[in-house]
Amino acid sequence: MSSAGLYDEYKTKMQKIADVKYASAVLQWDQETYLPPKGNEFRGRQIATLTETAHELFISEKLGALLQELNAREDLGIQEKKNVQLSLEDYERNKKLSGAFVREMSEAVTRSYHAWAKARAENNFEIFHAPLHTVIELKKQEAELLGYKVHRYNALMNDYDKGLTVAITDEIFEDLKPQLISLLNEVRQKPQVDNKFLSQSFDTNKQWKFGMEILKRIGFDFEAGRQDISLHPFTINFNSRDVRVTTRIDEHDLGNMTWSCIHEGGHALYEQGLPEEQYGLPLGEYCSLSIHESQSRLWENSVGRAKPFWEHNFQLLKTFFPGQLDKLSIEEFYNGINRVEPSLIRTEADELTYHLHVMIRYELEKRLIEGTLGSKDIPAYWNELYKQYLGVIVPDDKRGCLQDIHWSHGSFGYFATYSLGSIYAAQFYAAIQRQNPSLEEEIARGKNDAILDWLKTNIYPHGRFYTSGELCYNVTGEKLNSKYFIDYATSKFTNIYS
Amino acid sequence: MSSAGLYDEYKTKMQKIADVKYASAVLQWDQETYLPPKGNEFRGRQIATLTETAHELFISEKLGALLQELNAREDLGIQEKKNVQLSLEDYERNKKLSGAFVREMSEAVTRSYHAWAKARAENNFEIFHAPLHTVIELKKQEAELLGYKVHRYNALMNDYDKGLTVAITDEIFEDLKPQLISLLNEVRQKPQVDNKFLSQSFDTNKQWKFGMEILKRIGFDFEAGRQDISLHPFTINFNSRDVRVTTRIDEHDLGNMTWSCIHEGGHALYEQGLPEEQYGLPLGEYCSLSIHESQSRLWENSVGRAKPFWEHNFQLLKTFFPGQLDKLSIEEFYNGINRVEPSLIRTEADELTYHLHVMIRYELEKRLIEGTLGSKDIPAYWNELYKQYLGVIVPDDKRGCLQDIHWSHGSFGYFATYSLGSIYAAQFYAAIQRQNPSLEEEIARGKNDAILDWLKTNIYPHGRFYTSGELCYNVTGEKLNSKYFIDYATSKFTNIYS
Repeated sequence: MSSAGLYDEYKTKMQKIADVKYASAVLQWDQETYLPPKGNEFRGRQIATLTETAHELFISEKLGALLQELNAREDLGIQEKKNVQLSLEDYERNKKLSGAFVREMSEAVTRSYHAWAKARAENNFEIFHAPLHTVIELKKQEAELLGYKVHRYNALMNDYDKGLTVAITDEIFEDLKPQLISLLNEVRQKPQVDNKFLSQSFDTNKQWKFGMEILKRIGFDFEAGRQDISLHPFTINFNSRDVRVTTRIDEHDLGNMTWSCIHEGGHALYEQGLPEEQYGLPLGEYCSLSIHESQSRLWENSVGRAKPFWEHNFQLLKTFFPGQLDKLSIEEFYNGINRVEPSLIRTEADELTYHLHVMIRYELEKRLIEGTLGSKDIPAYWNELYKQYLGVIVPDDKRGCLQDIHWSHGSFGYFATYSLGSIYAAQFYAAIQRQNPSLEEEIARGKNDAILDWLKTNIYPHGRFYTSGELCYNVTGEKLNSKYFIDYATSKFTNIYS
Repeated sequence: MSSAGLYDEYKTKMQKIADVKYASAVLQWDQETYLPPKGNEFRGRQIATLTETAHELFISEKLGALLQELNAREDLGIQEKKNVQLSLEDYERNKKLSGAFVREMSEAVTRSYHAWAKARAENNFEIFHAPLHTVIELKKQEAELLGYKVHRYNALMNDYDKGLTVAITDEIFEDLKPQLISLLNEVRQKPQVDNKFLSQSFDTNKQWKFGMEILKRIGFDFEAGRQDISLHPFTINFNSRDVRVTTRIDEHDLGNMTWSCIHEGGHALYEQGLPEEQYGLPLGEYCSLSIHESQSRLWENSVGRAKPFWEHNFQLLKTFFPGQLDKLSIEEFYNGINRVEPSLIRTEADELTYHLHVMIRYELEKRLIEGTLGSKDIPAYWNELYKQYLGVIVPDDKRGCLQDIHWSHGSFGYFATYSLGSIYAAQFYAAIQRQNPSLEEEIARGKNDAILDWLKTNIYPHGRFYTSGELCYNVTGEKLNSKYFIDYATSKFTNIYS
């Protein structure tokens, strides 16, 4: 058969698998937003069946043979070639995990998720310990099945960011950590800034409307997506023309809703910008979780916590809440929303201490997966690192090692991408600024296209064509390094805390 | 293998197929409620893939062999035996339609649906004509593939109500039609009752809350379901613990929302009452669309348009809309909500003329499927029958043959079940009354359990164990006949129009 014919066959098969995967995503979205309580049990099995069906379709011998055949063809276009190559890699990777192993993992994860939820509610790590242990043992086994060089943890990180290794992450984190701690110490010697204005009572309906308006203003296309309410904010997509974000609204915390909207909006703009014609194929998918996070952090922090953005939007905010922010100057607002303070909860952390939260989890995971730390020792080790890195005393496991959902889901290797995302974001933002010296003036005039157009040209259209590292080098001229983040943070926070 | 072992295997397979089918239902629900406009195209293909996947899983040779083997076993319980027997029938029926045919139909239907929506918006039947013609040709082909006795249309009706035939329907309709028309003529000679009070401006939020309260009062379990807004009200279920209804709210038509809530609520109570432990198996499914409609009509009309129900709920309604209904007596209200008037739109028709709308569609469909009428002749034939049966002049196709979605979906053989549902409802209601002479007193005191408990005992638990006809005979002691409906309607409307 002609290469074009074979490629069409491959595309059809991949799109069918995507249909099943995205259907499962719709069920997950519904589970987090609208599912009535008694529907949970059957929903769990419906999602499991779709996951299994997609896996079975993907690891079929027929698709494997087709990929091998296509990969040997010389007459494919550059994009077609890359799609085939990436699909073949995915295929070979997936093939290493038997259906039985996938099911065992899925069942272990379901048990550990429920144990985690219970342990967290009852503030009792003991409930979580045994099911978590099982998941960790399975993740080790998964790493062995997948194979790796140097460090077993690399096999797992690879799932979230292809090519990411302990060596790369250690290099970045070891460079970043002392500088962060030193900047943090400097800031903490200065008088604290006030952010009490964020904790007034803010009408939740108005908060919702303000969040929707902000999403519109950064460029979210409501014809190709929507926002709903959920317990934890997230972004999910069913194709690039149906991208959904969620937020949560706390009457006494305006910041929670505002920056979760901008953060998830950043993720969503990326998904809305992925090439629609590559639906179901690697080039239609996001590059990596690190790059995904760079998109949310760029909007949340480099744009959404910077002064130019609020020069345009502060008036709108005041209009939504008449009488509540009238006496506040833009400087006071800006300083308040950037208040730095070591704390216990990662998701509530400021831009500086956030990375220390992540590093603690990264250190722990590395040791859990290499086997030098047992799951029963997590609480003590966690608490020790929080004291050491952040200088805070963890009062209980609920506000300590039980706070994140990730481990209960078996997501080992994920956390580092949060920090790497911020570092990529700072590096991208610096590149955009170099290419457009009037960038911040434009943002201050409400022209967010100054950012969005760059991302639409440089990041979104590539899908998985480049790895995170290649993409970064292509668009910034340098490999990833923490200099830009440190420069940005030093300048920003020494200014705020001057 | 033991019969129990084989039966477990059968159950597992069926439940997996159900997972895929219900996942598809979630995608359809989302399509009608929350889907952003640009998401429509990919959603269509995602649903098509799930439909195809479920079909392929169901017609697999392995499942066929398993069903044959189980069907030959003598040691199954009565319910197990019935499940196997019905699944085997379904299997043999489905097997007659190839995957390719199912996909072709699904694609034709997607095209015809979009053409219908456009034709309706532009009030131009020409746009719909060609895609509808294709669908009709495919439906004829489907009927031939499925096989039938006497009339080709029987093969299609069978899909909605097993065992239903043109002969049965003709007999019922030919009995009903002259009596209906004579009753209608009688009513029309009397002074018209006033229902203008329904067209005041009613706050839509309050309408929503009133509808939710009414759903609660008839027994809808909001822990196992929810209500949302859609263009056309519908009920859909993903299992008996997740049943969703939708409604629409028109500021100037209180009746629209109110009786759509009760109608869909009746469907939903049936789904919530189906045996959960039979998930994925025939005995966990509704009996037929006629019986499903009997449940919605029973609540909408026999209960929801009768005086006892409003003796209890009229005060609540007045409380929701203070000042708007205060001067209205319950008699005036009752008469108004039962106003009879020939009109153009089926979904807005009263209890009497409704059946004439249905009969027109039934006559048309029979002729389209037997091939004695071409799709291009629909508008003329439609308009002629509306003049003849209802005495109304159809001004345009939008208010004529383009008003219903059914044909665009390929749902030929469906309409008759609407009328049959009403006739079953009247027959069931009469049986409930015979068994409980104080029924209406209880309803008037808000004890809707008087109805619900009977349905929970006599209808819901059986799933597909009986056909519509068998079920009717079992619970009423008679085969379906229009006497109960005619008696009910004659007594009700001669009283209102006295």
